[in-house]
Amino acid sequence: MEKTTIKYTDSRDIGRKLHSWAKDLFPICRSITGPGLRETLKYIQKILPDLEIHSVPSGTRAFDWTVPNEWIIHDAYIADESGQRLVDFQEHNLHILGYSEPVDKWLTLEELDSHLFSLPDQPYAIPYLTSYYERRWGFCLTHNQRKTLKPGRYHALVDSELKPGVLNYGELVLPGEVEQEVLLSTYICHPSMANNELSGTVVTMALVQWLECLAKRRYTYRIVFIPETIGSLVFLSRNLNHLKHQVFAGFNISCIGDDRIYSYLPSRNGSTLSDIAALHVLKNIDPEFKRYSWLDRGSDERQYCSPGVDLPIATIMRTKYGEYPEYHTSLDDLNLITPSGLEGGYSALKRTLEVIEQNIFPKTTVLGEPQLGKRGLYPTLSTKNTSHSVETMMNLISCCDGNTSLLEIADLINEPFWELVPVVEKLVDNGLLWV
Amino acid sequence: MEKTTIKYTDSRDIGRKLHSWAKDLFPICRSITGPGLRETLKYIQKILPDLEIHSVPSGTRAFDWTVPNEWIIHDAYIADESGQRLVDFQEHNLHILGYSEPVDKWLTLEELDSHLFSLPDQPYAIPYLTSYYERRWGFCLTHNQRKTLKPGRYHALVDSELKPGVLNYGELVLPGEVEQEVLLSTYICHPSMANNELSGTVVTMALVQWLECLAKRRYTYRIVFIPETIGSLVFLSRNLNHLKHQVFAGFNISCIGDDRIYSYLPSRNGSTLSDIAALHVLKNIDPEFKRYSWLDRGSDERQYCSPGVDLPIATIMRTKYGEYPEYHTSLDDLNLITPSGLEGGYSALKRTLEVIEQNIFPKTTVLGEPQLGKRGLYPTLSTKNTSHSVETMMNLISCCDGNTSLLEIADLINEPFWELVPVVEKLVDNGLLWV
Amino acid sequence: MEKTTIKYTDSRDIGRKLHSWAKDLFPICRSITGPGLRETLKYIQKILPDLEIHSVPSGTRAFDWTVPNEWIIHDAYIADESGQRLVDFQEHNLHILGYSEPVDKWLTLEELDSHLFSLPDQPYAIPYLTSYYERRWGFCLTHNQRKTLKPGRYHALVDSELKPGVLNYGELVLPGEVEQEVLLSTYICHPSMANNELSGTVVTMALVQWLECLAKRRYTYRIVFIPETIGSLVFLSRNLNHLKHQVFAGFNISCIGDDRIYSYLPSRNGSTLSDIAALHVLKNIDPEFKRYSWLDRGSDERQYCSPGVDLPIATIMRTKYGEYPEYHTSLDDLNLITPSGLEGGYSALKRTLEVIEQNIFPKTTVLGEPQLGKRGLYPTLSTKNTSHSVETMMNLISCCDGNTSLLEIADLINEPFWELVPVVEKLVDNGLLWV
Repeated sequence: MEKTTIKYTDSRDIGRKLHSWAKDLFPICRSITGPGLRETLKYIQKILPDLEIHSVPSGTRAFDWTVPNEWIIHDAYIADESGQRLVDFQEHNLHILGYSEPVDKWLTLEELDSHLFSLPDQPYAIPYLTSYYERRWGFCLTHNQRKTLKPGRYHALVDSELKPGVLNYGELVLPGEVEQEVLLSTYICHPSMANNELSGTVVTMALVQWLECLAKRRYTYRIVFIPETIGSLVFLSRNLNHLKHQVFAGFNISCIGDDRIYSYLPSRNGSTLSDIAALHVLKNIDPEFKRYSWLDRGSDERQYCSPGVDLPIATIMRTKYGEYPEYHTSLDDLNLITPSGLEGGYSALKRTLEVIEQNIFPKTTVLGEPQLGKRGLYPTLSTKNTSHSVETMMNLISCCDGNTSLLEIADLINEPFWELVPVVEKLVDNGLLWV
Repeated sequence: MEKTTIKYTDSRDIGRKLHSWAKDLFPICRSITGPGLRETLKYIQKILPDLEIHSVPSGTRAFDWTVPNEWIIHDAYIADESGQRLVDFQEHNLHILGYSEPVDKWLTLEELDSHLFSLPDQPYAIPYLTSYYERRWGFCLTHNQRKTLKPGRYHALVDSELKPGVLNYGELVLPGEVEQEVLLSTYICHPSMANNELSGTVVTMALVQWLECLAKRRYTYRIVFIPETIGSLVFLSRNLNHLKHQVFAGFNISCIGDDRIYSYLPSRNGSTLSDIAALHVLKNIDPEFKRYSWLDRGSDERQYCSPGVDLPIATIMRTKYGEYPEYHTSLDDLNLITPSGLEGGYSALKRTLEVIEQNIFPKTTVLGEPQLGKRGLYPTLSTKNTSHSVETMMNLISCCDGNTSLLEIADLINEPFWELVPVVEKLVDNGLLWV
Repeated sequence: MEKTTIKYTDSRDIGRKLHSWAKDLFPICRSITGPGLRETLKYIQKILPDLEIHSVPSGTRAFDWTVPNEWIIHDAYIADESGQRLVDFQEHNLHILGYSEPVDKWLTLEELDSHLFSLPDQPYAIPYLTSYYERRWGFCLTHNQRKTLKPGRYHALVDSELKPGVLNYGELVLPGEVEQEVLLSTYICHPSMANNELSGTVVTMALVQWLECLAKRRYTYRIVFIPETIGSLVFLSRNLNHLKHQVFAGFNISCIGDDRIYSYLPSRNGSTLSDIAALHVLKNIDPEFKRYSWLDRGSDERQYCSPGVDLPIATIMRTKYGEYPEYHTSLDDLNLITPSGLEGGYSALKRTLEVIEQNIFPKTTVLGEPQLGKRGLYPTLSTKNTSHSVETMMNLISCCDGNTSLLEIADLINEPFWELVPVVEKLVDNGLLWV
């Protein structure tokens, strides 16, 4: 199949807008609870005013899980005997192990060592680590810096609080002509991490803006900005019956901002409408896209597609979490995601939602082939291109039996869905198709 | 799979007979209506006296189409100022653009030019062109000749009539033991064109002669000789309910006379009995046969398999229309089709009809394997060949569960259907199979 | 897939035990009836005291077949004029054509020749031949010996009896918690032949011993030791309704003792539980195993899977009958089968039965992913191996929807079934799975 160039309906500016949102959000120290999470939601609410922010108390059960205490981090550092801060949370969010409990003591380097985390294979990178459900404290630093620490006494200070509070998440519903829902979910619990987090957040924000502006919205869209895992579990446990009944398609949006490849990760079922639409779009915008299996899963599809929940959630990504060297380190920064990478990811998801919105079961109004000539649907001047377009039109008509969806037809006749939409419109206008 | 040699039940003479019929029909100037079409049908009727010739008035609706005026061509030429005929319909039918309206005027070479059609890439060939549904006139000629035309004045004469008349087609029904029908359709609307037309006509005629002579004919056969497209639309629109109810298999017969390859084009459904039988025969007579897709369609299967019509019509060809250089030019002549090419095409179709006629659901009469020895079904002298034939017999028996057709069994055990027929007969004679 | 090493639950001694049983049974001159068959059954009964020995009179009908007369062979030889025994049944069971009728006469070498059978391509091997259903007599010898026979007079003596008697077979039922049955069938009608016969007998005996010792046996096991073909036909004809109603899985056990490859031959259906379990085990113990088709069948699956019988009987072998040079000659001896070959075959079948016994439809007790941490199911120290084992556990849980069997899950997540069994047990113990 020939590589098709996407014709962006949005201006090239969208990539820059997405990147600037990510830049605003990057410095905030997010976690699965706490002030950074709330600050992030308020930023999103400024841009999407209809966003509702939910608060769920610590201790609330969510299936097999319990909402943990809230974590508030004020300051954290390792200082040497001279009082100089060597590892400083104020310099980089990632220096503090997420959910570190408070500490304030002097230790030898040996004692300190078990609280330090670094990556020998990536000596310039600060790793990103958390300990949500087991109390401990620690610092993350580059391996190069770790090697410079000399024997001696160090002052470790973590000025944090771990206390009953709330878990927050944002939710937004865009009603459509029908109550069937498309669910979009993205997460907002990672501190300064660009591709594996903020790319998903900002692309989802842009999709909401686009959906809000649609002249005609067939389906209802439910969009959630949540902490990963515990957030999706909380959201699911509060809305399970509704979601199981209404949601017929949906996507987890993550790792969608770099400039490398496109990736697809299936729902557990593997052949839901979300899967078929995602595959159709990806193979038509980039036949080289990488196809993962359910065994490669690793984000909230783990909850959405779990047995008994079984929502039809597939995932379209650029380079997948866990598959790029910068993943979960300080190298996953604002340079890794690019305006064009974000724009490409946004476009792929927008196209997929368009496929779902516009998927119909067209049926010819005439038996036999229609006579295109008398309706002026044959080109008067025949060129290579027009002959391809007539062929496409005839192939399309030959499949419009009322039982085959436009998406299935697009796959059958090897044409991008979006090339068929205007053809269907023309045929409907000419009375040749019922939709 | 080893290449199996067809054992012709007909003599080698059949290829020569087919070629001589084609030779008789070649000079007639056919179109979708008119005297050439009627002359062709009368020739066929002489050989197949039961052929009924239908006449459908101009203006009759056929689904989305309307039977056009009848076209009668008496003479046509381009002459130079000396009166010499340079391009002369009397010399070659293809010189006149099909359905040309009358004209009689003098033009400059420049004025004439837009009425001339030639093929720069095939300078020795006269193209075949028509304009059924848009009034115009024109001449087709070799590109070499076109280049010799000097500036000057030319006399263009088309002595034709375009007036209400009839569209004709031939139909023949051979009743069988049951009313279920096999439909064979071929077209008779191209002027002097050998592979892409007359091969289909003469092979179909020979199939009718063979079917007429069958000692036992299980199914009813309906055979039509029609103008392509408008003819099949007319035939369908007059008989739709009957055909949808009765026809369970069928073939469009076209491009079946050259000596190159075998080809298969599926029905829209792709897995009807017609498709399975055609694939079985082709893979067993020539494993190198070319397999096309529904997207490569181009003849009357476009109507027969259209949504809502959905007849099970597949196509077996030699070299497919559009896929050989002589297609739709004066090079598609009596040299392109050969006695052996026609005979091979005829045999492939005959075998396919035999498969359909003889397809049964055999069931063993005994549980466990039968004891072949006590019935003398084991060879007394064991050679390589007899051991293969015993193995085939045992494989066949092992599949005769009454739910699997002989055609499915043949595919399962990798044997040509026609090798299994005598084995089934022997087993029935020995009381080991019910059929 | 990585090659998995079987972890034998039995000691390495089992291979030696199996080989010693084969050694005991090797010298007995078995046929489809007669004293050798009975002696063999009594030997098995000594080891498996619950074995019931059936006797079916000659002349009894079994579907299309009839139990033949019993054959008793006392002595047989070809002697030269000096009285020296050149070909002597006392020296090797295979020297006598099975079911030879009595003879006692002097012949020229020319007259004798049509009663001699040898293998020019394997001049050192005595072939194994029988003539159960056509009366004749003959001697089998090495081709090398045959070439040494000089013109002259020879004394051919066959001291045999062919008279009404019985056909014997052994049957043993091990009741389980439920009445659904697994059928194991092996044959005991070949004289001194090791891989193509005794390997199956001794592996089946060992499987019975293992099944007898199982603390918990879910299914009922029916095991038969029968003469091939006529024995399975007799067994089937006497128990058809019961077997068709009760048997849901089973195996024909044959050619399971050499040290070369593993092989699989499907049931006629091809996708029964027996087939799926066999394929799962073989691909996990040896990805290089050879996969045959139904067309390669040749043992009692011919009867068990015949149309109308349709039992779900698949076959796991080491090197398949007919596929190794020693097959049906004196070279198929106790050197061809080895302790390790027998042990590997036994283990493959035992694993397959374990898969069938332990195949359940696990279902998670919680919605969403369970929190493994609070249950101590996450390793405290994370190594490459523990991370694979956590991944396996999570993959398993992600498929436990109550509709997918553990065997299907094992195939879905590419893990050997037996690696999942302890994981399931641990999850059940932790209240995370219902089974």
